[in-house]
Amino acid sequence: METKLEAAVIGGSGFTGLELLKILNNHPLVEVSFTTSKTYDGLDIGEAFPSYSDKSCTKKLKYTIIDKIPKNELAKIDVIFLCLPPLQSMEFVNNYLMDFKGKIIDIGSDFRINDPDCFKTWYGTEHKLKNILPDFIYGLPEIYKEKIAISRLIANPGCYPTSILLALAPVLKEESLIIEDINIDSKSGVTGAGRKVKPEYLFCSVNENFFAYSVLAHRHIGEIEQEIEKLANKNFKVSFTPHLLPVNRGIFTSIYCKVGTRVKEIADDNMEPGKIIDSILNSYEEFYKDSIFVKFLGQKIPQLKDVVGTNMCQIGIAFDDRTGTLKIFSAIDNLLKGAAGQAVQNMNIMFGFNEAEGLAG
Amino acid sequence: METKLEAAVIGGSGFTGLELLKILNNHPLVEVSFTTSKTYDGLDIGEAFPSYSDKSCTKKLKYTIIDKIPKNELAKIDVIFLCLPPLQSMEFVNNYLMDFKGKIIDIGSDFRINDPDCFKTWYGTEHKLKNILPDFIYGLPEIYKEKIAISRLIANPGCYPTSILLALAPVLKEESLIIEDINIDSKSGVTGAGRKVKPEYLFCSVNENFFAYSVLAHRHIGEIEQEIEKLANKNFKVSFTPHLLPVNRGIFTSIYCKVGTRVKEIADDNMEPGKIIDSILNSYEEFYKDSIFVKFLGQKIPQLKDVVGTNMCQIGIAFDDRTGTLKIFSAIDNLLKGAAGQAVQNMNIMFGFNEAEGLAG
Amino acid sequence: METKLEAAVIGGSGFTGLELLKILNNHPLVEVSFTTSKTYDGLDIGEAFPSYSDKSCTKKLKYTIIDKIPKNELAKIDVIFLCLPPLQSMEFVNNYLMDFKGKIIDIGSDFRINDPDCFKTWYGTEHKLKNILPDFIYGLPEIYKEKIAISRLIANPGCYPTSILLALAPVLKEESLIIEDINIDSKSGVTGAGRKVKPEYLFCSVNENFFAYSVLAHRHIGEIEQEIEKLANKNFKVSFTPHLLPVNRGIFTSIYCKVGTRVKEIADDNMEPGKIIDSILNSYEEFYKDSIFVKFLGQKIPQLKDVVGTNMCQIGIAFDDRTGTLKIFSAIDNLLKGAAGQAVQNMNIMFGFNEAEGLAG
Amino acid sequence: METKLEAAVIGGSGFTGLELLKILNNHPLVEVSFTTSKTYDGLDIGEAFPSYSDKSCTKKLKYTIIDKIPKNELAKIDVIFLCLPPLQSMEFVNNYLMDFKGKIIDIGSDFRINDPDCFKTWYGTEHKLKNILPDFIYGLPEIYKEKIAISRLIANPGCYPTSILLALAPVLKEESLIIEDINIDSKSGVTGAGRKVKPEYLFCSVNENFFAYSVLAHRHIGEIEQEIEKLANKNFKVSFTPHLLPVNRGIFTSIYCKVGTRVKEIADDNMEPGKIIDSILNSYEEFYKDSIFVKFLGQKIPQLKDVVGTNMCQIGIAFDDRTGTLKIFSAIDNLLKGAAGQAVQNMNIMFGFNEAEGLAG
Repeated sequence: METKLEAAVIGGSGFTGLELLKILNNHPLVEVSFTTSKTYDGLDIGEAFPSYSDKSCTKKLKYTIIDKIPKNELAKIDVIFLCLPPLQSMEFVNNYLMDFKGKIIDIGSDFRINDPDCFKTWYGTEHKLKNILPDFIYGLPEIYKEKIAISRLIANPGCYPTSILLALAPVLKEESLIIEDINIDSKSGVTGAGRKVKPEYLFCSVNENFFAYSVLAHRHIGEIEQEIEKLANKNFKVSFTPHLLPVNRGIFTSIYCKVGTRVKEIADDNMEPGKIIDSILNSYEEFYKDSIFVKFLGQKIPQLKDVVGTNMCQIGIAFDDRTGTLKIFSAIDNLLKGAAGQAVQNMNIMFGFNEAEGLAG
Repeated sequence: METKLEAAVIGGSGFTGLELLKILNNHPLVEVSFTTSKTYDGLDIGEAFPSYSDKSCTKKLKYTIIDKIPKNELAKIDVIFLCLPPLQSMEFVNNYLMDFKGKIIDIGSDFRINDPDCFKTWYGTEHKLKNILPDFIYGLPEIYKEKIAISRLIANPGCYPTSILLALAPVLKEESLIIEDINIDSKSGVTGAGRKVKPEYLFCSVNENFFAYSVLAHRHIGEIEQEIEKLANKNFKVSFTPHLLPVNRGIFTSIYCKVGTRVKEIADDNMEPGKIIDSILNSYEEFYKDSIFVKFLGQKIPQLKDVVGTNMCQIGIAFDDRTGTLKIFSAIDNLLKGAAGQAVQNMNIMFGFNEAEGLAG
Repeated sequence: METKLEAAVIGGSGFTGLELLKILNNHPLVEVSFTTSKTYDGLDIGEAFPSYSDKSCTKKLKYTIIDKIPKNELAKIDVIFLCLPPLQSMEFVNNYLMDFKGKIIDIGSDFRINDPDCFKTWYGTEHKLKNILPDFIYGLPEIYKEKIAISRLIANPGCYPTSILLALAPVLKEESLIIEDINIDSKSGVTGAGRKVKPEYLFCSVNENFFAYSVLAHRHIGEIEQEIEKLANKNFKVSFTPHLLPVNRGIFTSIYCKVGTRVKEIADDNMEPGKIIDSILNSYEEFYKDSIFVKFLGQKIPQLKDVVGTNMCQIGIAFDDRTGTLKIFSAIDNLLKGAAGQAVQNMNIMFGFNEAEGLAG
Repeated sequence: METKLEAAVIGGSGFTGLELLKILNNHPLVEVSFTTSKTYDGLDIGEAFPSYSDKSCTKKLKYTIIDKIPKNELAKIDVIFLCLPPLQSMEFVNNYLMDFKGKIIDIGSDFRINDPDCFKTWYGTEHKLKNILPDFIYGLPEIYKEKIAISRLIANPGCYPTSILLALAPVLKEESLIIEDINIDSKSGVTGAGRKVKPEYLFCSVNENFFAYSVLAHRHIGEIEQEIEKLANKNFKVSFTPHLLPVNRGIFTSIYCKVGTRVKEIADDNMEPGKIIDSILNSYEEFYKDSIFVKFLGQKIPQLKDVVGTNMCQIGIAFDDRTGTLKIFSAIDNLLKGAAGQAVQNMNIMFGFNEAEGLAG
């Protein structure tokens, strides 16, 4: 523990970037070497954002822009985090990181979709770096921990997909169950939209308000369906409807789907509720028994306030036998388990640290 | 217009009762003769609730209890509103109103379900007044206006059912469409729970929080299915999941369903999205063209803030042709269109007033 | 009541302008002839702002720009309301209204300060129309009702000044009391800042947050001191500190001052708390006994929620005899009693209507 | 660092107790041996409060009641934290801790006031343990760090007093300045009231609302004046007015006072604003230059959101030369710097740990 990891954060003044800097600032095994921000170039972080506390740090960190970083300083970096808007991560990698030997964790959305055609469908443009796209591992540790541990390149999952995939993985993976007609109703706090200065994100536009948005074509659908298909091992289309919640942080996802069983003995009972719910409960318990950042509540409903400020995902389920509907509810903090926290969890796994290092609480 | 209606409000200190008193206080054709409250008996309303303004009134109204009202004073009442918790309206009618000749508008839930067995299923107890249950008209004016106009007894709809039934009525009634697999995800502000002093309704339990509740058996399901079946003219089971929103007022409902068509020309095109959405849009425009309290936004999404404080229901739709899912979104103020406002709208219709009298804005 | 007043609203798409249009839309004695908005020119109000309900109106109102209004149509207007940002009302009057014969109610800030030098101090520029400045009456009806009734030109008070002057007027006017060292700590909801799209008004900047702003030189100070001096009939400097509250609407003002008495019998008792508080309570009761939009609560503290959505000002006081401090608390809705509601109250008085017409509730 | 401190938390299910358990759960040098709660006796903390994460812990902690703790287990405790309502800490110490040899940190209010008469004035009852009252050190580390380091008994300051005393200490201690007429207007988030289930703390009572409370006699005044008098070395009475903010956490305090100078050269200039503000700024810079949990912002205004979730106090000032008023603004998280965080800061100092251990971020 003599020498600490050297980390860099590209895009350190957005909600995710700043949250990441705060975590790394307190991580005992990491030192942030530099961070970039076009808006705040030259400013101390603690000056730009008074909530960032550097009074106990040995060094004050200033925002810079990437072109001011000497090439040899970049070469010394062990891990670089990209916190950039859609389409900018691939630009950045293309311009600055093609020779970079360290690890890359992209919290942006450019390397999550493996198929360049699918990428084009959802992001409206050709992918810049099709050749390295397959090298990126989808960084959802509860599903891909082994791959993450030996990978150099990570595509950190989107916030909605994290809340959805963790909720669905156990039943999709469970071979005895048949899941169909997945209908996802997600509700996100406002930090999910980033620090955009638009009329629709003004206090008076959001407070005491609620509405759905991007109801037909939210970009995360491509990523969600790709991962659902991998989990279920078959083609899947899902209905996904995001809503804006009048809270700062957190995503609450309600998933409704039809559930059947391949187990003859249960099917014979014509989906006897008691049996099917037991079998579902069991698959969640099993799936998450070793995951320190997923808390399965059984048939209790999670609450947003219990995960905000933490890297936890909490999940609860209910089976409505009147309509044969399985209801799955999950809650995460969109900036932590949905972004910066999960990125650090991935980093911990990639470097062989304790998975929860710097993330506890 | 010389003489005003004499009105009475039973249970005038809950959220709904107080809201009703405020509307009636400003209604040019009504005078409140008395209002009851066990908690505030003997107090001026404006003293119990400083938000109630009586400075411009000719008389100050005091809360009383029903037993202090002389029988002949009750007999003079033209319309009595019941704002009581479940199971108490039927008690009250049984004890005090069996000989009452005036009109009754029950904002409570006791007379909404026509079938006593169904009532018992959802409310857990035998109905007290099975014989008069069929006499109550379900007070959703956009569907039953003619019946309401000639009725003496009104069961004012629940807040969730109002937001759901207005959203679904046009497509359920539309004979060319086939609606299936109705999945309802509703989000309600906290006044929906009434003035209960419980830990889960404390500010710190709700603020910056969000969660689902009563996910398997909310009492409104019986009422919702009864009315859906009447509209669609067939049996229906729906999945309904209410959530608690960190706002004071308002219900936002997202409905997901499968939609098909009976029109051969459209069906032949294998549900060509353009045609089916046009047909759906058209059915909403038609259905609500004369309803002054429903604003159909077409393919725009309603927002809670645009209806809070008004008696309006706003509705918008989207058709996801990737999954064949029709998404319907509605927004109401739970205390107005979902309770007291709709009750006054019913009263206006019953007495031949302008439907919007006292409700504008 | 055959013919209605013809009204025009200049700047009808800001928070105040829209609120005013909603009130006038429901006012039985007024018809809005036109309203202007640069941003929304050509749009139906109900399209630009779905919360504006015109389903029950006979005519749909479109936003326009002033240059599209024919001169003779302007000439027919009985009352014109200006809802414009600082410095723009005097431009508008100068450009369009120098020959206008109807009444003008300026909800903006340009005609509130009588002394052009004082105006320059607080607004940083020369006044454009010094000659007509003295003709504007300060539209605080609880103090200047008689003058308002016979005036053609009204300067509607600022939101902070309204909350402060109504709180102080009774004790400043009371000759037996000596008021000194006035320290004002006001807290305003976010609509007070208008519809500005700035980072500091984003939801995530305001929600779960609180702070003071303009702590040394808020523009309202000039207006506050001018009116305090008139009430107290002597020179006065006050300390005023506005804060931003994480709520949509409302101003809560806490005023701290030293209070003494000129009444020998009380002064001899060395400011015996019981006597002085009685004398203060009495001056409030007397002062507001005929004011239908002020509710004096005695020694109870007002709450913001009890005035939001109404044109009321609620006031309560406390006398801290440990430090000789009189504490005065007032609450108003900044968009109603602090802007559009008070403007309509002024209009009612100017045209001899019932003072509360269109404002009840 | 082999062996960790053994800690106990009495009253671990209130807001403060739970917050303390979360901090200690992540503190690398402490192990919680037991915690008590009457309400949750027998429950896992993580079961009672799903936000408490014990998935990464070696042991699950259950709530218990004190009478179930064997005497010898209590004797092994190194530090015991009391998180009890007023009047209960002294009961507890009297009943269980008279022979206890470990350190005691009372986060309650019973041992903060040194003078038993003064205690009786503000708490309305005789103090139970007058003899040990003088042994408790007031645990405000920025002022009393040396004493805390060698003390066994700590009275952790109240939340309001912390926000006020840190704001005032530099100018009260500064001998060249004369501070008078201190007027304190504080605004607190709702967790400040604890987990009380009362109508006034319901979501609908607090949300979109704001009001002052306990405007004449808040219990914290005794503690505030005691400490102000120690700092200023003279008698002081202050006017203090707390308000309830519609946020979960945080206290924002605005202090208004008159400031003069004893420095002849400045006084001769008749309080020349430039000089006096420089002198004041300087006293804050000096006073807090080594305090890692106070961030002095100079003439910038602190914001609640920048301290919530941290143990920081942020302070900014303004000098209004129009009225000779010094305005001091401070912001803290009431549950951290105002309670549990400060308690751990005290513990760190008492045991010679790094002052920020377990508190970073």
